[in-house]
Amino acid sequence: MNEKTRDVVISAPGKAILHGEHAVVHGKVALAVSLNLRTFLRLQTSSSGKVCINLPNIHTFLSWDLTLLQPLLPENRGNDGNVQELDPSLMKKLREFTGIAEGSTDTQSMAVFAFLYLYLSVFAKSPVLPSMTVAVWSELPTGAGLGSSAAFCVCVAAALLSTQGTISSPQILENSTARWSVEELELVNQLAFQGEKIIHGNPSGVDNAVSTWGGILRYHAGKMTPLERVPVLRILLTNTKVPRSTKTLVAGVKDKINKFPTILIPVLESVDAVSCKCEEILADMATCSATAEHYSMLEELIDINQHHLNVMGVGHPSLDVLCRATLARGLHSKLTGAGGGGCGITLLRPETDCCVIHSTIQDLKAFSYECWETSIGAPGVQLHSSDRRQS
Amino acid sequence: MNEKTRDVVISAPGKAILHGEHAVVHGKVALAVSLNLRTFLRLQTSSSGKVCINLPNIHTFLSWDLTLLQPLLPENRGNDGNVQELDPSLMKKLREFTGIAEGSTDTQSMAVFAFLYLYLSVFAKSPVLPSMTVAVWSELPTGAGLGSSAAFCVCVAAALLSTQGTISSPQILENSTARWSVEELELVNQLAFQGEKIIHGNPSGVDNAVSTWGGILRYHAGKMTPLERVPVLRILLTNTKVPRSTKTLVAGVKDKINKFPTILIPVLESVDAVSCKCEEILADMATCSATAEHYSMLEELIDINQHHLNVMGVGHPSLDVLCRATLARGLHSKLTGAGGGGCGITLLRPETDCCVIHSTIQDLKAFSYECWETSIGAPGVQLHSSDRRQS
Repeated sequence: MNEKTRDVVISAPGKAILHGEHAVVHGKVALAVSLNLRTFLRLQTSSSGKVCINLPNIHTFLSWDLTLLQPLLPENRGNDGNVQELDPSLMKKLREFTGIAEGSTDTQSMAVFAFLYLYLSVFAKSPVLPSMTVAVWSELPTGAGLGSSAAFCVCVAAALLSTQGTISSPQILENSTARWSVEELELVNQLAFQGEKIIHGNPSGVDNAVSTWGGILRYHAGKMTPLERVPVLRILLTNTKVPRSTKTLVAGVKDKINKFPTILIPVLESVDAVSCKCEEILADMATCSATAEHYSMLEELIDINQHHLNVMGVGHPSLDVLCRATLARGLHSKLTGAGGGGCGITLLRPETDCCVIHSTIQDLKAFSYECWETSIGAPGVQLHSSDRRQS
Repeated sequence: MNEKTRDVVISAPGKAILHGEHAVVHGKVALAVSLNLRTFLRLQTSSSGKVCINLPNIHTFLSWDLTLLQPLLPENRGNDGNVQELDPSLMKKLREFTGIAEGSTDTQSMAVFAFLYLYLSVFAKSPVLPSMTVAVWSELPTGAGLGSSAAFCVCVAAALLSTQGTISSPQILENSTARWSVEELELVNQLAFQGEKIIHGNPSGVDNAVSTWGGILRYHAGKMTPLERVPVLRILLTNTKVPRSTKTLVAGVKDKINKFPTILIPVLESVDAVSCKCEEILADMATCSATAEHYSMLEELIDINQHHLNVMGVGHPSLDVLCRATLARGLHSKLTGAGGGGCGITLLRPETDCCVIHSTIQDLKAFSYECWETSIGAPGVQLHSSDRRQS
């Protein structure tokens, strides 16, 4: 490592749920999609004898002397690292070192803890810890259910593994990007999942998988299957900024199912069918060329699922406002993720005029919503540039 | 008949669908309820030698000399009358007599045609046709899917059968009302159904059954079962006055089922479960005393079914406005009947303050909706007064 300095720029997408949120908890199919609001990471190796991390979005700028980090490394340095489980001894040492209490959920603490854990895991086998400065900034809002923590972990994992040499540094043509092999991406995904576990305790692994692989993932009974060919769809993503507790919403759906099982169980089945039908339409759009009829059906499915989510009790007046405001412009919306406020997605057709989009965004801003014109189904983690210089 | 003149006042309720509209077409349970917006009929026998009918709601005031009606009677006067089928020869003669074309759907023509048919059927066995003046007025709007034609036919059938003596004239205490025996009501219902066939061609028979029996009818696969004990529930009935075609809406649901069977069939099952659960709650309310919890559940079912009806594609922006405006006052609404505009019902709790109701009605009137504070589950056809005088 010492003979070279490296400078890599990597990005990874957020995620949204296209269909199946909540139903997935009850064994139904969900479609998780990459959201082309991306997190960017720049890693520069240095000879400063320090590790610096700069997270401007969350106002966090920290650095540590390598001499202080070195003692945290596992004694058995030959261990190749079981990346399936968190290392309890490293967790304990890091907790003592950072002073971050067990059970903390503070965004800054969690990001720092996850970064240090991944850094030490990756370089545990190296003779010396490398100096570096890592900067991460994101287009994703945090805490909005858009997988911002997963995009962060995926970027960090890819950058560290690439710097360490576990995964390659693909050649990049000017103004272009590169991706890694399936095996390499699997390593990135596994390591990012460790970071997600630190941040979330018991994550499903869907967020880091979508951020790693991009495109659309079918998630069913704990099993994730990337859809083979998918179209990239233009959307508006809207954050109503109404705070909600995913835990409370999930519990509410469960209560409702227990209260009215004969009414709710068919609704979950119908949501399952919505996900499956959507999958079918998307495959068709990617194989043949996408038609207006495809878009009409996608819009119908969005409307149906939004009604179903209301039946499950996870709607919110702010989301009704979103649906109504966009429908007034001929656009169809549904909540994405937990509901009860939070975010919604609005499908845009390829031919949707920019004036319509602009007016819609203006309308939504009048409700103090935040709005992004973006896409779903975009690529996963990408390498944007990689300079390898003799130091 | 000749030695007495009679003066009877009869009323019969309209109907609304509480749950299961559209799903009933696909073999699911619907709950049809009597609507306490009533049609009133006054029949006075006379010695004028004429039959007069006054229908102020539809600006119809007609009379016929008995000498002109007499030749229309069936030749086989001894026939007891098969009330299961319309008499094609009488239909033909009446069409010639009135000049009303086959296939006419005009409200005035249909009301007059049905009245004359019922009058001639009932008095076919009498030695002479009786002179009478029949006046009918109604609280029900016509053509709004509230069973106004059935209430008309039930009133006419009960008045004619009572005057003819086929059914009794129960004694009425001052300011009170009386009902007939189950057997007598069955005769009224059967005759009224003939009138409905004239007006609608191929009616289900639900409207006349609800208007005859009152209360709540479970309707499933062509079979009607009156619920044994039901509570009377306060409601607001709102007419959005948005015109719609029941035929087109029914066809639209069928198309949607064919387009997305795996999505829509579970929705119909869920609607079925809503009807069954509602039936259970209503039975419980009538047996034990009604609690706030009962009302909360009824409100939840209303919300769920309204979402399901939207999924079926029979919602309408005017109905969304109704739901939103009433919810702003803490009240829950759904469309009733065909949807696509038309009418909606809003549940009121026993403790709902009259100020809230008044304000809600004002809000709805601002959208040019018509609004009635009424109830569902009220009694069926009733005799309000019956004077039998020696002439």
